[in-house]
Amino acid sequence: MLSPQDLAAKVGATLFAVDAASKDFLQMELLACEPGRARMRMKVREPMLNGHQICHGGLIFTLADSTFAFACNSHNKVTVAAGCSIEFLKPAHLDDVLTCEGVEQVLQGRHGIYDMQVSNQRGEVVALFRGKSTSIQGTVIAQEAGPA
Amino acid sequence: MLSPQDLAAKVGATLFAVDAASKDFLQMELLACEPGRARMRMKVREPMLNGHQICHGGLIFTLADSTFAFACNSHNKVTVAAGCSIEFLKPAHLDDVLTCEGVEQVLQGRHGIYDMQVSNQRGEVVALFRGKSTSIQGTVIAQEAGPA
Amino acid sequence: MLSPQDLAAKVGATLFAVDAASKDFLQMELLACEPGRARMRMKVREPMLNGHQICHGGLIFTLADSTFAFACNSHNKVTVAAGCSIEFLKPAHLDDVLTCEGVEQVLQGRHGIYDMQVSNQRGEVVALFRGKSTSIQGTVIAQEAGPA
Amino acid sequence: MLSPQDLAAKVGATLFAVDAASKDFLQMELLACEPGRARMRMKVREPMLNGHQICHGGLIFTLADSTFAFACNSHNKVTVAAGCSIEFLKPAHLDDVLTCEGVEQVLQGRHGIYDMQVSNQRGEVVALFRGKSTSIQGTVIAQEAGPA
Repeated sequence: MLSPQDLAAKVGATLFAVDAASKDFLQMELLACEPGRARMRMKVREPMLNGHQICHGGLIFTLADSTFAFACNSHNKVTVAAGCSIEFLKPAHLDDVLTCEGVEQVLQGRHGIYDMQVSNQRGEVVALFRGKSTSIQGTVIAQEAGPA
Repeated sequence: MLSPQDLAAKVGATLFAVDAASKDFLQMELLACEPGRARMRMKVREPMLNGHQICHGGLIFTLADSTFAFACNSHNKVTVAAGCSIEFLKPAHLDDVLTCEGVEQVLQGRHGIYDMQVSNQRGEVVALFRGKSTSIQGTVIAQEAGPA
Repeated sequence: MLSPQDLAAKVGATLFAVDAASKDFLQMELLACEPGRARMRMKVREPMLNGHQICHGGLIFTLADSTFAFACNSHNKVTVAAGCSIEFLKPAHLDDVLTCEGVEQVLQGRHGIYDMQVSNQRGEVVALFRGKSTSIQGTVIAQEAGPA
Repeated sequence: MLSPQDLAAKVGATLFAVDAASKDFLQMELLACEPGRARMRMKVREPMLNGHQICHGGLIFTLADSTFAFACNSHNKVTVAAGCSIEFLKPAHLDDVLTCEGVEQVLQGRHGIYDMQVSNQRGEVVALFRGKSTSIQGTVIAQEAGPA
């Protein structure tokens, strides 16, 4: 039987390994996956720039949405996003390194609320994100799984 | 002097040509850019799948956010997103073709509200998105520009 | 068997009659309750003013939230608000008469999304509101009810 | 010259004294107004019940919106709500005593983001609210004001 910490870490590693969008396409790193929390990092690369030559806001959202996914799946129940909101506070530029920290605010039955904060390498807040999750049937990894 | 329709189309083409994220990275198509409106399309490809093997919600958001950008820049004032919310209604799967239609609901001074609807190839609504825009200084293309 | 129109009207009248907050406290009027739609009106009275001597934004929200409630209960399934967002566009002043129009955008299974627009007596948009609903068990009025 | 703490308390008392909606109509109490923070309380009374005989969600929102107003005006710049979102987690019933705690998350130039949590007398979270503020011209009380 895994501790909640070990379970969250294992769920995170398992999901991340098959998350082509986060890992390969956007080249995010999963820095931490803990019970109800996660932390990810993404560098702004040239393909991520929009017509104003700043990072596409959708890709900043995607970093937050990925972090949200790891935080809300960390309890090993398959959980999806029902809705999200984001406030954009500062633009992100080429070569900025964005870190997203996310934490569970409320989890009641199948519904949770999670807050994400995206900051740049100078510690400036780039965006605040709030996600609402719903768990569906199934577990991410087999419940009885022992340590890897 | 361009008509509002021609101005919007020209602004759209100009922004899209340099929007690496939308055009090249996510391979969206800009189907229409009209005064206060836009329509874009994106196919769900393998690199866009997340750990649950469905399209990453952040990339569905990105399609809506791009469409929002074209709609709110269509008046040829440089305009950025202040905040957005999205409700996810159905998952999108590999090879689904998503179309986003967006329309201006309110434009008052520098602030606008735009609603986007993302549908799949069966006409099912995948997501609803609402964006708040703020115009900043400058125009997208030179104001006196004649027809290309 | 009532038509959807008659059923919605009857559900609206039934709910409104026992809705102390909307009817008596805020003195709203229910102008229409149709399938997936509703329209309400509220005058800004002195007790509704906040410390800036304009209508308290919460009471503008409450008008929209009531209209949302009538629209989403109009199908005669007991339905509650899961979450809402509002954008405030113009202040409302003493003696302004606010009208809220609301319409269902999506209804899928137990979950719906409804958009409300609050305008003043000059037709200016005061606020835009989006509500997410969830139906729970039960009907508002007995299903087999004939005309009153 | 007042300290930030004393200034916030004085701004709070000044605004609350003329806030008919919060003080008289909804009978809220202002428990604290500190720099970037506020705390308010409201009892659910009979006139606040809706057609489902639970507290009207709009009035729960109004408690959060008032608390948000005190938190974002606490720096003595006149500040208004641009937009808000709320997630309803539990219904509130007759005679429940709701407390709202609010805190500034970000304040950048004229724009701020504030998070409110509404709990009942059992400590259960009833709603989470996020508000976006914009400061306009003017101060709430004269800047040079000495202690009352």
